[in-house]
Amino acid sequence: MMRRLTAEALGTGLLVATVVGSGIMAERLTDDVALALLGNTLPTGAILVVLITVLGPLSGAHFNPIVSLVFALKRELGWRELGLYSAAQIGGGIAGAIVAHMMFGLDLVTPSENVRTGMAQWFSEGVSSFGLVLVILGGLRSRPDSIPWLVGLYITAAYWFTASTSFANPAVTIARALTNTFSGIRPLDAPGFILAQLAGGLVALALATWLWRPAQGEAK
Amino acid sequence: MMRRLTAEALGTGLLVATVVGSGIMAERLTDDVALALLGNTLPTGAILVVLITVLGPLSGAHFNPIVSLVFALKRELGWRELGLYSAAQIGGGIAGAIVAHMMFGLDLVTPSENVRTGMAQWFSEGVSSFGLVLVILGGLRSRPDSIPWLVGLYITAAYWFTASTSFANPAVTIARALTNTFSGIRPLDAPGFILAQLAGGLVALALATWLWRPAQGEAK
Amino acid sequence: MMRRLTAEALGTGLLVATVVGSGIMAERLTDDVALALLGNTLPTGAILVVLITVLGPLSGAHFNPIVSLVFALKRELGWRELGLYSAAQIGGGIAGAIVAHMMFGLDLVTPSENVRTGMAQWFSEGVSSFGLVLVILGGLRSRPDSIPWLVGLYITAAYWFTASTSFANPAVTIARALTNTFSGIRPLDAPGFILAQLAGGLVALALATWLWRPAQGEAK
Amino acid sequence: MMRRLTAEALGTGLLVATVVGSGIMAERLTDDVALALLGNTLPTGAILVVLITVLGPLSGAHFNPIVSLVFALKRELGWRELGLYSAAQIGGGIAGAIVAHMMFGLDLVTPSENVRTGMAQWFSEGVSSFGLVLVILGGLRSRPDSIPWLVGLYITAAYWFTASTSFANPAVTIARALTNTFSGIRPLDAPGFILAQLAGGLVALALATWLWRPAQGEAK
Repeated sequence: MMRRLTAEALGTGLLVATVVGSGIMAERLTDDVALALLGNTLPTGAILVVLITVLGPLSGAHFNPIVSLVFALKRELGWRELGLYSAAQIGGGIAGAIVAHMMFGLDLVTPSENVRTGMAQWFSEGVSSFGLVLVILGGLRSRPDSIPWLVGLYITAAYWFTASTSFANPAVTIARALTNTFSGIRPLDAPGFILAQLAGGLVALALATWLWRPAQGEAK
Repeated sequence: MMRRLTAEALGTGLLVATVVGSGIMAERLTDDVALALLGNTLPTGAILVVLITVLGPLSGAHFNPIVSLVFALKRELGWRELGLYSAAQIGGGIAGAIVAHMMFGLDLVTPSENVRTGMAQWFSEGVSSFGLVLVILGGLRSRPDSIPWLVGLYITAAYWFTASTSFANPAVTIARALTNTFSGIRPLDAPGFILAQLAGGLVALALATWLWRPAQGEAK
Repeated sequence: MMRRLTAEALGTGLLVATVVGSGIMAERLTDDVALALLGNTLPTGAILVVLITVLGPLSGAHFNPIVSLVFALKRELGWRELGLYSAAQIGGGIAGAIVAHMMFGLDLVTPSENVRTGMAQWFSEGVSSFGLVLVILGGLRSRPDSIPWLVGLYITAAYWFTASTSFANPAVTIARALTNTFSGIRPLDAPGFILAQLAGGLVALALATWLWRPAQGEAK
Repeated sequence: MMRRLTAEALGTGLLVATVVGSGIMAERLTDDVALALLGNTLPTGAILVVLITVLGPLSGAHFNPIVSLVFALKRELGWRELGLYSAAQIGGGIAGAIVAHMMFGLDLVTPSENVRTGMAQWFSEGVSSFGLVLVILGGLRSRPDSIPWLVGLYITAAYWFTASTSFANPAVTIARALTNTFSGIRPLDAPGFILAQLAGGLVALALATWLWRPAQGEAK
């Protein structure tokens, strides 16, 4: 279990370091926000493919409490494991934000002042988390060895098609509350995001359960 | 059948939400139209790989009445199914545009004022639909499990090599008539696009039928 | 044979249509030349993956007289076939440039005024063609089913690491002499490019023959 | 052995030619540094996938003395081989920088004046080398045939999430000291980078040895 939790913490940490670090790099290098978002998107998508491939066999590579919750509800993860996984993900994510700050010579923690709230933002988080869970559960049925690519490509798209740039992950949301840079979110706004992510994930679980019922013979 | 139609509607909806949503995001963030098109292209290509992989085993993942028509003409889809598929695709596409608008806080439907007409545009749609059908039919012969990548990469290219940015899909064209944003098309101009797509798709079907004749032994 | 030649002409044509068309789109949309080159690079790399996958089983998907020549020298293609392949590639390439012009509402043929000459340019073409042939011959030994990706990614890189943006293909060079747009080359400068490509390709063939000698047991 | 060393020199040379060449191309074409970094990142990631796939079966495709050292410490490479590999990598890298200069019509060698020093830079190099070695060792356990993609995507991300743009390679660092262009590093600053890379790589080796202990049954 120690190694599984290490894998979850390490993976979430490197994911957050990439999200936060590439955001800092991007906003330092350009004034064009679309270009900055592109410089934030491509590294995030790329590192997801890498981390899920490399750490998947150790822990499942959830890196996301919503994903762990979905597997707990599907009875593929114990409730105590869900607690430990979530703690490792949140702890790892915070460490990742700190590492990113150290790499760019910033204070270790700088609470974000980036306002992200309102119906459109919450709906965006709901949609993006809905899509993420749907892609994972559907991908596990159709092509499990492609999950790293599916998640990386999905997030690449979701950074752009949602108004919130698709956090879709409570551990990452908490970590991003601690960085007053491109990818940050005001701590006050984090709970709204997390609730919306939870709602989107649960709707996707319900839909996926119906869409991919066990009896494959009935699938059409 | 209900699940197949749900898969077609869901897939087309998420595709349109990505096309429209990323277009809105892109035009909000930059004044450089090439950069906006890049921010529209990469998410579209990425989500196609994801959606076709995940939903393909359920419905075939056509998401496009031209593609469904081609399979009907090849007698791999019944005519009644073609009608149902097309309806699901169009309905799902419209819902996708509405979801995109909701994510960005816009009115649910805003008819486009984006003029896209004339010989060059129609010829572009014909070429892009020709290429799309050729890639699908050829890919099914040479490497069926690569179809999601082939379609995603093809559309990534076609967004740039055609003057119309390659709609190549009547359901998506109808949905894009309902958004007065980056990716929109004036409702008046939609029929011309759809006819050109139909023509391109049928030419590709004829060519592909000859190029990949069943008797593989003769293929060279 | 007719279908093989059709595949070569069609593939080279769609490749050139992508190179020329995306160049026109890019230069119309932005004043930043790096961004225009990016808008030219990504579609070209993407379409190469697609075309080689789809048409490879029909003709080998050379789309390039240098590549066909290399296979002829390796005695995997007859000399008469080399002539026919090259003619199909050149004819298809020219048709592709014309199709691109039609899609963008330009005159069918517009001889380029884009000066591309001198030692640095020729050396660039030699290096890029050397790399292309090395990648194809090495890829055939190490992972033949990855050839479409290897070529697409190689060209993506070579557009940027060479001063000439890596034509690396006589058929494409001839076609690009006929378009006075972003991707064009002055007809007068084409022969220098083609000679440099030939030299680079032959050096690569010699090196590859030594590096990947048949007796694999000796390979280390 | 001659062919193995040729493969290492050739691969490192083409890698450096890509890094240096695409940097020159990018800084010539745009004033936006984020765009220039993007034009430097994508070719580097792409060529890594290609070179590791094609040359991997010949030499292991290390192209990096840190990677060779890690395999020596794991007793999968002899100490004498480590010396020869490192020499081939350094020699090949320098040749690659010279080739890039020749392609762009510059003096063969131009010592860099690009200052890259200080704690943030060194920590960045440590983190990026840590990640690189972790990805290689983890990837060899989970999906060895994906190593080319994992390394290419990892470097794509690391160019952006580290403050140093992730050299992560002593041979490449030495070569980049010889180019006074976009990707250069002042010769005086190279030793600090190399020490940081060494430290990061060794920490990763220790962690990976624990994470992926041989007895897979215990892995969870």
